[in-house]
This record gives sequence, C-alpha cells and structure tokens, in this order.
Amino acid sequence: MSKTLIFGHKSPDTDTICSALVYADLKNTLGVEAQPARLGEINKETQFVLDYFGVEAPAYIENVDEDVDNVVLVDHNEFQQSVDNIHDVRITEVIDHHKVSNFETREPLYFRAEPVGCTATILNRMHKENGAILSRENAGLLLSAIISDTLLLKSPTCTAADTEAAHELAEIAGVNLETYGLDMLKAGADLSENSALD
Amino acid sequence: MSKTLIFGHKSPDTDTICSALVYADLKNTLGVEAQPARLGEINKETQFVLDYFGVEAPAYIENVDEDVDNVVLVDHNEFQQSVDNIHDVRITEVIDHHKVSNFETREPLYFRAEPVGCTATILNRMHKENGAILSRENAGLLLSAIISDTLLLKSPTCTAADTEAAHELAEIAGVNLETYGLDMLKAGADLSENSALD
Ligand SMILES: [Mn+2]
Ligand SMILES: [Mn+2]
Ligand SMILES: [Mn+2]
Ligand SMILES: [Mn+2]
Repeated sequence: MSKTLIFGHKSPDTDTICSALVYADLKNTLGVEAQPARLGEINKETQFVLDYFGVEAPAYIENVDEDVDNVVLVDHNEFQQSVDNIHDVRITEVIDHHKVSNFETREPLYFRAEPVGCTATILNRMHKENGAILSRENAGLLLSAIISDTLLLKSPTCTAADTEAAHELAEIAGVNLETYGLDMLKAGADLSENSALD
Repeated sequence: MSKTLIFGHKSPDTDTICSALVYADLKNTLGVEAQPARLGEINKETQFVLDYFGVEAPAYIENVDEDVDNVVLVDHNEFQQSVDNIHDVRITEVIDHHKVSNFETREPLYFRAEPVGCTATILNRMHKENGAILSRENAGLLLSAIISDTLLLKSPTCTAADTEAAHELAEIAGVNLETYGLDMLKAGADLSENSALD
C-alpha cells in the first residue's frame, strides 16, 4: 500500500498541526492510508488545543523517509517553509490559503489554494464535498485553527467563509466560540515570565 | 463593476479556448462580470468546434489592459506560456491540470489544479458544485476540449474523471462521442497539402 505523509510548515502553528491531523483522518476515512507529521515543536496554544480535545500530536520528522510515496502539504506551499528534502519527494497535493510562491512540481498534482483565512476552512468544505462527518474532536481542531489564524474572527484576513465555518464547527465541537477562543488564545500568549512569579 | 478577464495559454488549443469561453459564461451566470480572451490564432480543430456549436471565438488580446482588475488563467499556470504583461496583473484564479511551474502571486488566490486530462473536466465539476446548468453549446465546448486533450479518451493522461465527464457531456451536447470526436480530430489534422489536391 502506498504511504502518504501530510504536514504543514516549519515552526508549526495551530492551523498547520490541526490541518495535518484532520486531513490525515479524512484520507483514512476515504480509504487512503495517510499519516500526519510535524516539522517542529508544538507551541503552547496548539498544546492547549490538543489537550482540550484529547488528541495526540503528530510525529516529528526531520526529513521525509525514502519509503514515503506521496507527500501532501497543508497550510504552506513555499519550499523554504517545508521539509529540508522537499525537492526529493513526490508532492501529490497541496491544501493552502497562502499566496503561491517558489513552488513547483515535476508532475500534475491536486493543488488547492483558496483565498480564505485558514486551511481548516477549506478542510471543513472538503468534508462536505466528500460527504464525510466530522467527529467532535476533529471539529474542535478545525475550529481552533480558524480561531488561531483569524484571531477569533477579527483579523483582516478573516472571510465570511471562515466565520461561517467557525460557528458551524463550534456547534459540532460543543464549545462556546468566544469562551473557548479566548482561553485558547490566552494559553498561546507567552506567560512564561508571569508564571515564574506564580 | 470590476472587470475580469479569463484566458488560456499562447498558441491556444481547444481546451484553452473552450475553457475560457465556458468559465466566463459560468462566472456571468454566478453574477461576476467576466470576459473570455485568447492570446493567439484559433487553430483548425478549434474552429471546427466553434462552427459546429455556433459559438464566437473570444477576442484576441496582445496584453492585459490597465482597466482589467482581475485575471483568471485557465489551462496553464506557467508565466512563459501566458500573456506578456502577466507580471503586472492581479491573478485571482487559476484553473488548470498541468504541473505547477514558475508561478507566483503577491496575494492569496483561488488556485485549482487537478491531476486530470483536461481543464474542461474540472469546469464540468465546477458547474455541478455551483448547481449551474450547462447549455448544449457549452457542454459541446467542454466535450471538445476533453476529446482534444485526451485524443478521444485514448491518451495516457486521460483519467476516469475525463472519460466520465466526456460521456455525460456528449449526452447534453446531443452528439455521438466517437463520430463527433473523429470528425473534430480530423478537422484539426493538417490536411492543407491534401486539400490543395482536392
Ligand atoms: Mn500557518
Ligand atoms: Mn494557516
Ligand atoms: Mn492546452
Ligand atoms: Mn488542457
């Protein structure tokens, strides 16, 4: 069976980690064996999210192993932000919301970039397109990614699609968007100096 | 109202011309003013298609005018294959089935590349996604593009999605896939030397 690895950018943020986890899950649901991975340390905000929904972080990789057949990039497309041996792998898909830059492939691929505030918003759409149901945990991960990328729907990059997805996902995840969102963003704010005083 | 121009590659083929025409029509149906354009001469095969379905060729452009706000690329993404002043325009969308190469933007965009045999196959999908009905003419144009790019579903680049779309579109266009397809490919074959003998 062919092996597919899904990962986001270096210095991973919540969108990168959650999108890799949820997309790998969707692939598996659709009968394609896929594993999520990460290219760096989990930050505090993302750790809060994973703890809250009881989900394990993807495995850390330094490089893509030779036995990996297909690579799926989420939340980035620039090679500088990707794995070190990106030039040696076969990229079969990209799901992203950034401008396209310094990207190229030898073969045709599924490249899906949409001008929205978060990769998770696209993944929410892809679940609908495929008639796939989001679990409470996965809805929570996608919601967290949107909250993170749009600063609780307040950033200039936030679109109507992100706002709509966030409300939908909060319902499935069973959380209050505002309360959960603020807790999450607070967890991400660097409070290490303060904590030292506690 | 913002002006959107849609065009395929230089040395236009049937997919490039038909995809520009049909996508502009879909945009207009969806309430977005859009005009198709072409970057070169219509070839014999494409002329046969346009004559058969009674559709006018898109206007020829040498460069994108300054009053154009948005540019949509179909059937290509490499800047070398595009309009000369491609670096000065705002690309808001790409719909393509080729590898990604030498492409970049300053802003996020809707970039949709799928590993299928023809742009028209993606456009057929997009009609369904948007609940838009294809006219007989537009179905004929998309069908012709698939026949052209896949050599009547026989090329190694032809996928199951292309074959399925072609059969569907032939039905809507009211033509026999094989008969029409062969006539179309024959019209495209350079018979000028033979014709001189007729
Ligand atoms: Mn990110
Ligand atoms: Mn993101
Ligand atoms: Mn072409
Ligand atoms: Mn084509």
